[in-house]
Amino acid sequence: MSDDLGAVGERAALARIIPRLRRAQALLGPGDDAALLAAPDGRVLLSTDAMIEGPDFRRAWSTPYELGWKAMATNLADIAAMGGRPTGLLVALAAPERTSVAELEAIADGMAAACDALAPGVGVVGGDLTRAPILSLSVTVTGSLDGRSPVLRSGARPGDLVAYSGRLGLAAAALRLLFAVGEEDASGIAALRRGRPELLREQLAPSPPIRDGVRAAEAGATAMLDVSDGLLLDASRIAGASRVALDLDGAALERLAAEVVAALPADEEDAPRPGRHEALALVLGGGEDHGLLATFPDEPPAGFLRLGVVREGLPAVLIDGAPVDPTGWDSFAPS
Amino acid sequence: MSDDLGAVGERAALARIIPRLRRAQALLGPGDDAALLAAPDGRVLLSTDAMIEGPDFRRAWSTPYELGWKAMATNLADIAAMGGRPTGLLVALAAPERTSVAELEAIADGMAAACDALAPGVGVVGGDLTRAPILSLSVTVTGSLDGRSPVLRSGARPGDLVAYSGRLGLAAAALRLLFAVGEEDASGIAALRRGRPELLREQLAPSPPIRDGVRAAEAGATAMLDVSDGLLLDASRIAGASRVALDLDGAALERLAAEVVAALPADEEDAPRPGRHEALALVLGGGEDHGLLATFPDEPPAGFLRLGVVREGLPAVLIDGAPVDPTGWDSFAPS
Repeated sequence: MSDDLGAVGERAALARIIPRLRRAQALLGPGDDAALLAAPDGRVLLSTDAMIEGPDFRRAWSTPYELGWKAMATNLADIAAMGGRPTGLLVALAAPERTSVAELEAIADGMAAACDALAPGVGVVGGDLTRAPILSLSVTVTGSLDGRSPVLRSGARPGDLVAYSGRLGLAAAALRLLFAVGEEDASGIAALRRGRPELLREQLAPSPPIRDGVRAAEAGATAMLDVSDGLLLDASRIAGASRVALDLDGAALERLAAEVVAALPADEEDAPRPGRHEALALVLGGGEDHGLLATFPDEPPAGFLRLGVVREGLPAVLIDGAPVDPTGWDSFAPS
Repeated sequence: MSDDLGAVGERAALARIIPRLRRAQALLGPGDDAALLAAPDGRVLLSTDAMIEGPDFRRAWSTPYELGWKAMATNLADIAAMGGRPTGLLVALAAPERTSVAELEAIADGMAAACDALAPGVGVVGGDLTRAPILSLSVTVTGSLDGRSPVLRSGARPGDLVAYSGRLGLAAAALRLLFAVGEEDASGIAALRRGRPELLREQLAPSPPIRDGVRAAEAGATAMLDVSDGLLLDASRIAGASRVALDLDGAALERLAAEVVAALPADEEDAPRPGRHEALALVLGGGEDHGLLATFPDEPPAGFLRLGVVREGLPAVLIDGAPVDPTGWDSFAPS
């Protein structure tokens, strides 16, 4: 008998998927119209984000396990970016009828594994499974500030230090390799997976520094966000919201670019090793890094790399004092 | 210049859409990585539900305004079904590049209008806009129990009264008319809209009795859910979770079926007026009603129609004491 969703049916599929997910933090399990979660300080942080087949991922590149992992990781980062502690996730999964339930189980396994690794004790507390022409995962994540103030984008002040926790440019570098191989060449994709597993993981199943969100808040971070659209563009958002200039350290950025060069293969015909300039472009504008960019009045906590200083002046991003044009990823931008 | 999302870009589109939404209940406005909502009793109700173009709606039948309205209404009903008061909504909207921003503005207007009508003071507090081959709206709704216990599906006890607030069968009856006209016949659809606006609204922009969720909880409701998959199937869920039999009153169901017959046109060639039997099938299994089915130890509050009693016995749904086979809508069921 077919294992397709269309043959198995929604209810039987859910009965197989739900037990694979963690719900440690729910006050009330699945089976009712809504989940009930604790909000210990009387407030709840909320963010939602969709991953759509095509624009956001390719089935040829991502395993179902990786899709589940990435959907959790990128959403958890939005709570961390506020200085919050994640408390739960809801998933609206839409899938074609021909999707096998085994694939959906693998998505659930990836979700559970990402939660265990990045936010232990947190899990999926609710969801929805529907039929659709393409696969998509719409995730909502909740978090608690545990009595603290949220860390906004608007609190950076002249004299603060700019710091970053996480990887930069590697997710974009991995995507560059995947695009060079394409979606049709299964053996090329397999070779890439064997040859550069860690680099591909930065794109396909990233591990943003979720716990560093609370650490940054406790260390007095004045502004923070998670870098999803490229360092320069996201830095310009803090600059704009805080009405300050963020002056980044060119030498620090060059060191990050060198790491990107080192992570890339030197011998690919289709994707020649990038030069320092190209690697710097990936660091500054690659996107999908999902690390935390924050400003601190004092030394940043362990895990954060010093990347510059906040200066008085018109909202702008500078490198070694010279203004740069922030560019990044706009999913609807004219291409 | 084109008003398409692909030409306008995500950020410029959001700048036009966000001001049209209400955010009265948010502690923190948009512009950061997560929204912050009050959870006054230290707990938060959460539910998520996706509406996908094709399986869940047709662009030929629903206006963008109606899509926005329905996405809010159906999600608000999930909070009401727990005895909760809605406190906010998050929307992950995915749309093709060719979608005009004016359409997205109309979706936002429908969302704001539904919130104003069904849950005044509540609005969209966060969201996400992404590119996708088809239009979809994934909504997450939050709610507060204000110190009360949640009303689960599992609390019905023998001797309780079964009651319902909302419409039954009309949403399915409207869908039947739309299917009879089809998606190609624009003038036929327009004629249907002119001739039966109220009936079509039950399907395209329903108004579930959101406030009756809290009223039911305050009146001591022992079990409750919102009827989305058909009365019988959802009644069987209360029966199964509570380990009781729900015995529905055949005469009350016949009166509801007569209302469905009266709401349908008598003179359509393509869709002849249904008989009482067919109308009863729409009442019992039509689905998408989104009213509240609840059980009460005493008289149900105003707004609820008495529909039967809870009896001891194996989990089952009965009509006038005779077991019936609950059937309903499974979005992946073999067709």
